[in-house]
Amino acid sequence: MKNKGILIVVSGFSGAGKGTLMKKLVQEYDNYALSVSATTRAPRDGEEDGREYFFLSKEDFERKIEQNGLIEYACYCGNYYGTPRDYVEKQLDAGRDVILEIEIQGALKVRKQFPTSLLLFVMPPSVQELKRRLTGRGTETAEVIEKRMVRAAEEAEGIEEYDYIVVNDDLETCVRELHEIIVAAHNTPYRNEEFIEKIREELEVLSKGEK
Amino acid sequence: MKNKGILIVVSGFSGAGKGTLMKKLVQEYDNYALSVSATTRAPRDGEEDGREYFFLSKEDFERKIEQNGLIEYACYCGNYYGTPRDYVEKQLDAGRDVILEIEIQGALKVRKQFPTSLLLFVMPPSVQELKRRLTGRGTETAEVIEKRMVRAAEEAEGIEEYDYIVVNDDLETCVRELHEIIVAAHNTPYRNEEFIEKIREELEVLSKGEK
Repeated sequence: MKNKGILIVVSGFSGAGKGTLMKKLVQEYDNYALSVSATTRAPRDGEEDGREYFFLSKEDFERKIEQNGLIEYACYCGNYYGTPRDYVEKQLDAGRDVILEIEIQGALKVRKQFPTSLLLFVMPPSVQELKRRLTGRGTETAEVIEKRMVRAAEEAEGIEEYDYIVVNDDLETCVRELHEIIVAAHNTPYRNEEFIEKIREELEVLSKGEK
Repeated sequence: MKNKGILIVVSGFSGAGKGTLMKKLVQEYDNYALSVSATTRAPRDGEEDGREYFFLSKEDFERKIEQNGLIEYACYCGNYYGTPRDYVEKQLDAGRDVILEIEIQGALKVRKQFPTSLLLFVMPPSVQELKRRLTGRGTETAEVIEKRMVRAAEEAEGIEEYDYIVVNDDLETCVRELHEIIVAAHNTPYRNEEFIEKIREELEVLSKGEK
């Protein structure tokens, strides 16, 4: 029973620890490919083209949109962000599970185009812990933290759209859980249509032959 | 994140190895409870009441039906077979995952009453292997084997009703896969409504407090 890779969409509140989780997941297991987004915003210090983002000009980004070169895209604060189609499709065809980290609107757009995609939502163990993590970074102003809490409340409304939730309490445990959920997802009937069809045809032949 | 047990329904072709799988699963992991069916057929040599089946008289069985004491039941070859409700509900409330081994009609009846139940279908790696296993037992006549192959072809039509399929090629691997699928299933949003609601309420309070 061998099938194509699964397109995995990971969302979750800011502060839930998605970035660290994804990095660790890709490090520990070798069946994953991490999709890199494209953006028109300027690179920050230390960011590398093709690692954090593919940094594109507005013209190049809009050309990609026209050519259907993005699976999904959105505009935030005057900048485009999107998922290049090429990389994702190549990796899926090679049987690797591709991970995208995007928010719910993007996640739902991906599901429409890839009905067998797997939507995962990362949650903090509690809201107290979420607030502690956001405050603990020490890099954000009180105003930014407030905004994120409000944004989290909005995002929480969409959780039922996701296939699975994972609670990021202990990093190691959560990475293992994520991996096991993805492994299990390969076993749904709609991700194994070819195998099921083959068994059916063989049964058909044999049970007719036997009569 | 703690939730109630999951009601797990296991179906699959005769010869796919369900019985051995279930026994092994319950032996290796301690979160499972195996449901024992009730029947009106006579015990065979070596069968014990409460182990293979609960052996009931026709009158007792029909009283159970009237009292809504069975989750599902069916009549085969003039004998009743059914799943006692008591045991299943007690174990689920105690947080244990309960395993039923029944065929598709029963599985769909269970799903109606327990919308969060998990339906698993065990498949052989190939039809050749299925036939080899049925023949290899040496206990069945050619006619019985033929009937089972025909029955398998019928059962194969319902596979898409199941949440997951597992291929029983190597016993150890298949038991581990089953376990991982069940563990993953505990993480669906609809099996964690209380936890999600709690997070939502806390976020609501905090994001209002912050404004």
